[in-house]
Amino acid sequence: MTLTRKLTRRDFSRLSAMAALSSSLPRMNAQETAGGGRKFGWCIVGLGRISMGHFMPGMGDSKTGKLTALVSGHREKAEKQAAMYNVPSPSIYSYDNYDEIARDKDIDGVYIALPNAMHAEYTIRAAKAGKHVLCEKPMCTSVRDAQAMIEACAKHRVKLMIAYRCQYQPQHLKAIELIRTGAIGQVQTIESAFGFPIQPGEWRLNKKMAGGGPLMDVGIYSLNACRYLTGEEPGEIKANASTIDQDGRFTEVEENDGWTMKFPSGILASCTTTYGGDTGGGGFFKVHGAKGWIAMEPAFPYQGMRLTARLGDGTMLDMLDPQHDPAQFTTQADYFVECVWNNREPKTDGQEGLRDMTYISQIYEAAGLRGL
Amino acid sequence: MTLTRKLTRRDFSRLSAMAALSSSLPRMNAQETAGGGRKFGWCIVGLGRISMGHFMPGMGDSKTGKLTALVSGHREKAEKQAAMYNVPSPSIYSYDNYDEIARDKDIDGVYIALPNAMHAEYTIRAAKAGKHVLCEKPMCTSVRDAQAMIEACAKHRVKLMIAYRCQYQPQHLKAIELIRTGAIGQVQTIESAFGFPIQPGEWRLNKKMAGGGPLMDVGIYSLNACRYLTGEEPGEIKANASTIDQDGRFTEVEENDGWTMKFPSGILASCTTTYGGDTGGGGFFKVHGAKGWIAMEPAFPYQGMRLTARLGDGTMLDMLDPQHDPAQFTTQADYFVECVWNNREPKTDGQEGLRDMTYISQIYEAAGLRGL
Repeated sequence: MTLTRKLTRRDFSRLSAMAALSSSLPRMNAQETAGGGRKFGWCIVGLGRISMGHFMPGMGDSKTGKLTALVSGHREKAEKQAAMYNVPSPSIYSYDNYDEIARDKDIDGVYIALPNAMHAEYTIRAAKAGKHVLCEKPMCTSVRDAQAMIEACAKHRVKLMIAYRCQYQPQHLKAIELIRTGAIGQVQTIESAFGFPIQPGEWRLNKKMAGGGPLMDVGIYSLNACRYLTGEEPGEIKANASTIDQDGRFTEVEENDGWTMKFPSGILASCTTTYGGDTGGGGFFKVHGAKGWIAMEPAFPYQGMRLTARLGDGTMLDMLDPQHDPAQFTTQADYFVECVWNNREPKTDGQEGLRDMTYISQIYEAAGLRGL
Repeated sequence: MTLTRKLTRRDFSRLSAMAALSSSLPRMNAQETAGGGRKFGWCIVGLGRISMGHFMPGMGDSKTGKLTALVSGHREKAEKQAAMYNVPSPSIYSYDNYDEIARDKDIDGVYIALPNAMHAEYTIRAAKAGKHVLCEKPMCTSVRDAQAMIEACAKHRVKLMIAYRCQYQPQHLKAIELIRTGAIGQVQTIESAFGFPIQPGEWRLNKKMAGGGPLMDVGIYSLNACRYLTGEEPGEIKANASTIDQDGRFTEVEENDGWTMKFPSGILASCTTTYGGDTGGGGFFKVHGAKGWIAMEPAFPYQGMRLTARLGDGTMLDMLDPQHDPAQFTTQADYFVECVWNNREPKTDGQEGLRDMTYISQIYEAAGLRGL
């Protein structure tokens, strides 16, 4: 089981010191940091684009974590990746022997980067194995699954965080701060969009695997942004959905969604998402306040987020994220590890994911589609 | 009555020549152009910001028209404006003697720039007086009024155009052209917003005068843009409305509207409009196509419209309108006069205005407010 999961910060400090003292022991070698502190051992579940292209490279700069295991259905691919990241061969698991991670002391937590419909099962199995879970968004493909994931992680006392990457990025945090401190006055309206022309053959086009179309995959960024920007939960949700292209890509999921939300304060937000159209690579959001505005464009890419704003005092802001991919993944993973180490509930916990599942379900129903 | 209203282009050429021949006659003096052709005589109905600040200054560069009369309830203000524009004192009318414009041969048409609720009456009275009508948007405050305006203008054989300024501007025409020629592929989704924090005391906050809140005044730009960009009429319309500020401004009309529309092809558009928030002075729209995108920001201001785009062939466009206010008003007025002279139906005729009235009504009803 994990070493740190029930520890307070004080406990951890003490244990870190102990770990440092014991750093010469062979079994700790894989978990040492340069400074002598023990690193959080990550097991990557699913070797797809986001794992191999972003999360795993992001571990290179992590001060808190390191890769210690992989789970994949493709042994050859896994061996290759394991070699690249110095993950020992015995730490490569398949979906069949995945539950054996319970006995792997080098694994503190898992990063779930599987197709959406597999998130619930592999999160719950990880929880049963006593491993903390960082799960990619969308959390899963049904409200019921989201609840089951939360319950399993609570029961087995592991942390569950949904990988809402943007909520840990300085530009997005700055936007939230500007709004909360009244720098643009009372927010009135928001617009946001995110999407891309999807290639045929992607699992994202398979309803059973994805749960739905662009709303599940990229529209969720706009939905989530409207929620963290306002700090409110949407009330009235109105929506439309459509499929334009009859080229075989959209036989199972919708191509486009458009929705408008009313928050309790009266703030209105209108959004679109698309698997058919080009949104410039990173989507956008705009926030209109009584005394100024905030725009983020691109808003949701892996690098190059750009915040511009005109504040009530006349200040013009232009903040371009100077970091490069995969820095956002490092930041997010480090945040999660700090939560585990300090026994703190992650900001984007299971409840946060569940709320989006609920609203996505409502959007689909408002558009005349089947809810989640 | 007007000289040219039933003329074909050939008739007009002949009459223009006659007018040139008769240019030495005293009664024609006010209607001469530098080149000898007769200019279209404009009667300005309502001396507010848009008349005095934009339309009337715009006449200075008009090749087709000139100011020949004013209608105002404030004699002193009217005298001052008349002096500035060399409009003779007898050509100043009040709302009481407005119908006498019928006998004023120097008036070919009227420009209606009154509060929204007065558009219908003054358009219909102008039609009865045999004068062509360029009426500011929104066309009026009810679907029934819009129909009555169209009928009156048809019956009295005068042209009716709604002043949808943007539909005559190069940037907007370029956006339409790019879409129609497939330069960004099949359009999938659109977002648009326009609004501003309104000052207390404006007639726009009076429900009877304005007909509604920001949707009537500025949201109509986004609505109209979605229609001319797609070339389609919206089917499914979903909406929310809200009032946040309880500072006395919004006792009669709503502060914010958010809506999403589904067009017959499947294109989805999501918009907001606000009287409480800052949209950067000119609003925006973004169009997402299968092969590229178009953005206009600012989209709807009197000057400085900026079109950017990434086309399917990789071309990046950045078109900034080099003209200054009031050039857009000159362009629009000249277009209308050409329609009159050539007996051509204006692109933004009464039917175009009526359609927006109908959709605005539907948006209000979808938001749980009373329709128009």
